[in-house]
Amino acid sequence: MTGTKESTELKGLSLIGGIESETSETTFQAVEAATGNAIGPEYHSVSLEDVGRAVRFATSAASCYAKLSNARRAAFLKAIAENLEAECENLVKRASVETGLPEARFEGELARTCSQLRMFADVAAAGNWVDARIDRADPERKPLPKPDVRSMHRPIGPVAVFCASNFPLAFSVAGGDTASALAAGCPVVVVANASHPGTAEIAGRAIMKAVSESNLDGGVFSLLFSSDHSAGQELVKQSGIKAVGFTGSRNGGRALMNIAAARPEPIPVYAEMSSVNPMFLLPDELESNPESIAEGLFTSFTLGCGQFCTKPGLVFYRNSEGAETFERRIAALVGNAEPLTLLNESITNNFKTMSAKRAGVEHAASNDVGGLKVGVNLYKVSATDFLGEPAYSEEMFGPSTILVAADNYEQLSMAANALEGQLTVSLHGSEDDLAEHRDLLDILNEKAGRIVINGYPTGVEVCGAIVHGGPFPATSDGRSTSVGKRAITRFARLVAYQNFPDKLLPEELRDNNPLGIRRIEE
Amino acid sequence: MTGTKESTELKGLSLIGGIESETSETTFQAVEAATGNAIGPEYHSVSLEDVGRAVRFATSAASCYAKLSNARRAAFLKAIAENLEAECENLVKRASVETGLPEARFEGELARTCSQLRMFADVAAAGNWVDARIDRADPERKPLPKPDVRSMHRPIGPVAVFCASNFPLAFSVAGGDTASALAAGCPVVVVANASHPGTAEIAGRAIMKAVSESNLDGGVFSLLFSSDHSAGQELVKQSGIKAVGFTGSRNGGRALMNIAAARPEPIPVYAEMSSVNPMFLLPDELESNPESIAEGLFTSFTLGCGQFCTKPGLVFYRNSEGAETFERRIAALVGNAEPLTLLNESITNNFKTMSAKRAGVEHAASNDVGGLKVGVNLYKVSATDFLGEPAYSEEMFGPSTILVAADNYEQLSMAANALEGQLTVSLHGSEDDLAEHRDLLDILNEKAGRIVINGYPTGVEVCGAIVHGGPFPATSDGRSTSVGKRAITRFARLVAYQNFPDKLLPEELRDNNPLGIRRIEE
Repeated sequence: MTGTKESTELKGLSLIGGIESETSETTFQAVEAATGNAIGPEYHSVSLEDVGRAVRFATSAASCYAKLSNARRAAFLKAIAENLEAECENLVKRASVETGLPEARFEGELARTCSQLRMFADVAAAGNWVDARIDRADPERKPLPKPDVRSMHRPIGPVAVFCASNFPLAFSVAGGDTASALAAGCPVVVVANASHPGTAEIAGRAIMKAVSESNLDGGVFSLLFSSDHSAGQELVKQSGIKAVGFTGSRNGGRALMNIAAARPEPIPVYAEMSSVNPMFLLPDELESNPESIAEGLFTSFTLGCGQFCTKPGLVFYRNSEGAETFERRIAALVGNAEPLTLLNESITNNFKTMSAKRAGVEHAASNDVGGLKVGVNLYKVSATDFLGEPAYSEEMFGPSTILVAADNYEQLSMAANALEGQLTVSLHGSEDDLAEHRDLLDILNEKAGRIVINGYPTGVEVCGAIVHGGPFPATSDGRSTSVGKRAITRFARLVAYQNFPDKLLPEELRDNNPLGIRRIEE
Repeated sequence: MTGTKESTELKGLSLIGGIESETSETTFQAVEAATGNAIGPEYHSVSLEDVGRAVRFATSAASCYAKLSNARRAAFLKAIAENLEAECENLVKRASVETGLPEARFEGELARTCSQLRMFADVAAAGNWVDARIDRADPERKPLPKPDVRSMHRPIGPVAVFCASNFPLAFSVAGGDTASALAAGCPVVVVANASHPGTAEIAGRAIMKAVSESNLDGGVFSLLFSSDHSAGQELVKQSGIKAVGFTGSRNGGRALMNIAAARPEPIPVYAEMSSVNPMFLLPDELESNPESIAEGLFTSFTLGCGQFCTKPGLVFYRNSEGAETFERRIAALVGNAEPLTLLNESITNNFKTMSAKRAGVEHAASNDVGGLKVGVNLYKVSATDFLGEPAYSEEMFGPSTILVAADNYEQLSMAANALEGQLTVSLHGSEDDLAEHRDLLDILNEKAGRIVINGYPTGVEVCGAIVHGGPFPATSDGRSTSVGKRAITRFARLVAYQNFPDKLLPEELRDNNPLGIRRIEE
């Protein structure tokens, strides 16, 4: 791809503190997913020295950026959204070439990315997220006077963000981690995903332009390119980095968790890693709607070529007549499915390796083909076999799912108990089904960050109440969410102000509440 | 001590899931701090097998306890407070014997412990802490209908609590970590501090009685005794434990952090560890009130024999006439101070070792004496020397503080920048001082969880807005507080419910808000 406008000409350079930086001689190139051909430009891997330089710029920008008014921070986030929209055509084309996914997908993903940025702009502008609490003084209290204590969330400091392979826009350079960290008042240093560096560069330049247009310190945003993991590992080791956002594999996330935990000053890591998103089909509902459930499941587990973190990868139900109809319908859909192009070689190889391991398993369809293309894979095992083989619970990224057929409710209940932490769990059930399976719901309540009734887990609603998180290994920190308004508090810490003169308090805590925010008067 | 009533007869046994358990032949005894003599009974160290048993009981009790109504959970916490008060005389006497601190101190600490339990009872009863958020469905939305999404905090699961040496009541068996975890809906397994096992046993029996009186599963609470760290380390390794609360040394906290991070399923550790609580005396104020500041500082750094986590251990100011008056006054107070008894041999030895290391430093008074007694230590160094020697920033637990005299403001600013994370920072300044030192306040804002103006850091107000936390190494998790209402969210994780029938939702999220809690309608 060559740029259609000056602003989008790709140069293959890291953007460090507002400056293009050719930081090493090591280069790599993007690959056109459909053909496997390398495409320009050459991307220069960042040197480890320049990783440190990006962090120093971020550290130096942190204090001033933290004090930026809510209105200016909101305007900055909106400027990023506008600049991305101005690059819509370039972003959509490049992302489609780099991933093999259709352009329409990226029109939707760009819209989501921009609405996410505007949502966090609104959160920053409203200012309520700081959870301001005020305990007023009581000088008359016995035996000791009560001091005036007020507290709120404050930005945690510079944040490292790692881009996801599967969402080149919404979970990448200008994605949810970046948007929520910037909204919280933290500078960001992003590590691009090597699968879509061109998309990353276009988005990075859009942010860099917004930084400049908003008259902010260039250190507020840096974008680093690297052909391997060394730059990212160095970034997490840097003492100036105070938190990490990551979306990717379990191994990758765990590696960053370990580095962060071993630092002289350990820091929080928010890694969204691995989830098989189990679905449970309850008998009454399965008897009533076997075909529509099969169709919904097929759409959900092949969406984005099965490369969604919320892809349903395990489907539990009891053997019955409805179950047989369901199995026939889903097998037919899979049998007629065209091969799909995966995001990169590593994901494709991993898919084929897992597929080979499961070769002995009953499968309704498997049609491996060449290049980055794979067939849609559907497996079926008994609940007994599932309980005896932990490997069935491993995430298989790509278009595949496992049907787990049980003989009785006890097996389903045991399977539910055996599950690791998940981003989502879904149940399909009639009113009667759900009333009869309260204990199953109780078990599943402990397993996931989001529980869906009579729906499919893909398509995460970006809203105030959403939780895109869950117990390990779904995420590194099951207390948090990486999507939705609540995501902003990940990048904050609590600070209390005791007996402060009013004018020295942050505006959020002053007597007359000049920002008009929601506060709790204790 | 022998019990005055049947309920307080000390047996030296771990309390596991409601049952007294003599779990190993290894025993240890408490020491009377004033004399160094061992006192009865013999405490049996828990076996590693029984650590696992306590966790299995907690795991088995977790689901049911999590579903207990807010009202019953509140009543349970209040019952613990009442049972502790019924043991007031025994608790106060035993704690005084085991620590060498006066009985009056423990009357105060017990009152604080019970008011803390009642505060968390109120938090549980009110139910607002779950931060319920509701996004209602919009079936008409284009291009896709909007689902109904509701979310809230849910209990994280069984919590391991480690007792502090310096607060045998308020940060121990029935202290803040236990109270907030129980209020959140989590079973608790407590590891007693070997310095005050008798106090621990009395408190543990008071909780066990409340468990039984409240008709709860015995697994909701266990208390483990151990003469060494093996039981505690095993506890944190147990897969059933989902979070850790700890108050103690930096080494101890870091060891638990490392164990938790290395688990197959890493878990959050809330360790409150190490803080020197710097004070900054600004020139105008120091000129006006040198003697009263010296008196306030002396009281603060010797309170509880200097064994408070918020003890001011570094005092920064510029050389001046007021500074000289201040130095003379504090030196006089220290010169006249009686030796003080520390909590145990390890703390005493550590104090003496650090004192010996600082022997070359100018000190106004140092009077080491025998047994667990030490003198009050006051050191003075120049800002230049302070900046050249990181050891001055290490916490010296016990009655000691370091005066750091600077030649100019630049040195103070450099010293502030060089500080590690702290629980508190205090500033003494006139209105003019504070106006002139906004940049110093900006630096300190990044260093601590609580900033105090014209006050002393000891005496943490237990209230809604308080923050007893701070960046590492003050705590392991600077996002949180271990004191005050906000502490409850440490033991919770977010769960979202999508498209749930109203009656299957937790009460907190139902349409008609049956609990009448504060909710955010997005």
